[in-house]
Amino acid sequence: MAVYTDVTADDLADFLADYDLGELLSYKGIAEGVENSNFLVHAGRGYFILTLYEKRVAPEDIPFFLALMEHLAARGLTCPQPVKNRTGDMLGFVAGRPAAIVTFLDGMWIRRPGATHCAAMGDALARLHLAGADFPKRRRNALSVEGWRPLYVAAAAGADGMQPGLREAIERELTHLEAAWPRDLPQGVIHADLFPDNVFFLGNELSGLIDFYFACTDTLAYDVAICLNAWCFEPDHSYNVTKGRALLQGYMARRPLSSEERSALPLLNRGAALRFLLTRLVDWLDVPAGALVRPKDPLEYFRKLRFHQAVTSVRDYGIDA
Amino acid sequence: MAVYTDVTADDLADFLADYDLGELLSYKGIAEGVENSNFLVHAGRGYFILTLYEKRVAPEDIPFFLALMEHLAARGLTCPQPVKNRTGDMLGFVAGRPAAIVTFLDGMWIRRPGATHCAAMGDALARLHLAGADFPKRRRNALSVEGWRPLYVAAAAGADGMQPGLREAIERELTHLEAAWPRDLPQGVIHADLFPDNVFFLGNELSGLIDFYFACTDTLAYDVAICLNAWCFEPDHSYNVTKGRALLQGYMARRPLSSEERSALPLLNRGAALRFLLTRLVDWLDVPAGALVRPKDPLEYFRKLRFHQAVTSVRDYGIDA
Repeated sequence: MAVYTDVTADDLADFLADYDLGELLSYKGIAEGVENSNFLVHAGRGYFILTLYEKRVAPEDIPFFLALMEHLAARGLTCPQPVKNRTGDMLGFVAGRPAAIVTFLDGMWIRRPGATHCAAMGDALARLHLAGADFPKRRRNALSVEGWRPLYVAAAAGADGMQPGLREAIERELTHLEAAWPRDLPQGVIHADLFPDNVFFLGNELSGLIDFYFACTDTLAYDVAICLNAWCFEPDHSYNVTKGRALLQGYMARRPLSSEERSALPLLNRGAALRFLLTRLVDWLDVPAGALVRPKDPLEYFRKLRFHQAVTSVRDYGIDA
Repeated sequence: MAVYTDVTADDLADFLADYDLGELLSYKGIAEGVENSNFLVHAGRGYFILTLYEKRVAPEDIPFFLALMEHLAARGLTCPQPVKNRTGDMLGFVAGRPAAIVTFLDGMWIRRPGATHCAAMGDALARLHLAGADFPKRRRNALSVEGWRPLYVAAAAGADGMQPGLREAIERELTHLEAAWPRDLPQGVIHADLFPDNVFFLGNELSGLIDFYFACTDTLAYDVAICLNAWCFEPDHSYNVTKGRALLQGYMARRPLSSEERSALPLLNRGAALRFLLTRLVDWLDVPAGALVRPKDPLEYFRKLRFHQAVTSVRDYGIDA
């Protein structure tokens, strides 16, 4: 939630001169997106979002993200649509940073999603996976199982300072997952970060998906696992089986999960919990003591991991095995 | 530049239910306003700004601010206009905080203002002072000369850690200003914080003034002094007499400064520099070491103060005595 790069009106007017968006009327930095700087731009032709890609986004990945949003929107999924400039380019530079303009989406993210929202979200996730099936570009998931050990190495020394025993618990889980990780489940485009703040609703209707900057090619059911972790736990860290069932049934009504995918779900859920535990832990340990901006709590995902470790069957998530 | 209070869609929909703004379509926290949380709200009737007043704004002052914006807008000054709900109220509550909806203003603030912008700004400041002449409410300026010693006391112990000798230099200046401060110059409504980020332009045309949350009843020429400090120094802290002259002539073309006001200007400029030196110093010393958000540099205003102390006549600012 930050604006990392300041943009002058002259910078932005120069950039927009290549677009058919009309006169620049205003722009405001918005508190959205953890990785990039985002501005809401009012121009003669309407409202748009300008994204400046910050250091954590690899420039060579940006064409994948933009082409994916265009691909999904063309297949009826409501997501920000990259706007092309007069020479047909979707990517340019503002204030020395790679930058793109996308369409503005109405809708609000739900702070306390209920089962109805989870069902709509499961449906949208399946639609995303189906719409992505013929997307030709590929991008490796740097935050899948091969990426976790480097994160563990970076965070190991500080883990026990967060909670005694955490280091060993992570190491054991990591070793287990590296050996047992399912590698032959159906793959395709996954969003990989479809937390509630990336899903917009108007009333109870899902109105759009945003923030595709972790999207990649990976196991589809792993994306389901990420969403179960992100949407179906209560503030006290207990799993809400009603929400979980709603999400999974919403998904399976459009894209049924094979029996292999279903039996892998407990393991995929453990992996998703470990992935967010590790990245949050690295971010937490990276911030100086006393900083005003406090990163998200890593231990939230340790508690979720504990839940998944105790699961004996996919039935515990609310669906048949 | 922050959003301090999170707002849920339900909170906001409840609040807007009392307004004739149509359905809530989206809202985004915007990185604007140092003191409050601001959201850009899209509703059926258009785009608006929602402000949640945070702890540094005294609730009893808010009616003054809102009535002032309404008063100035009714007299043709372009500034955010408070929107009334169905019962005629401009002030309500969102997420436990006092909150108001104001109209959205197009325009952009100028990062590197030139003499043309300074001239337009001087003109707008005079128009604000004239439009405020018949405003019936009054609000004491808590950050005028009587308010500086408490700030000095709060910051004194840390001042020399910032720059050796700073404490004594501030103390000497403060004692001088307390004795010499002009108390019989024309008073009225002043903005008191008209920095470049509170003045919007479309091209070279000034399109509006925002952020009236330091506005108060005080010496009109002191407001001019604040603007000279904020607009007419270069990044190397040298005074730009071309910009200063443009600002002052822009102002005086609409509201001539009396000879008393002109001869007091060097002293008022010293006061304005000391005011921002002190508040920035307090903020600076209040932030823990290593914090991610770094407050503004207090020493910028110490250098401006040094310039004003060396001034021998208002001619040094670019106008006749």
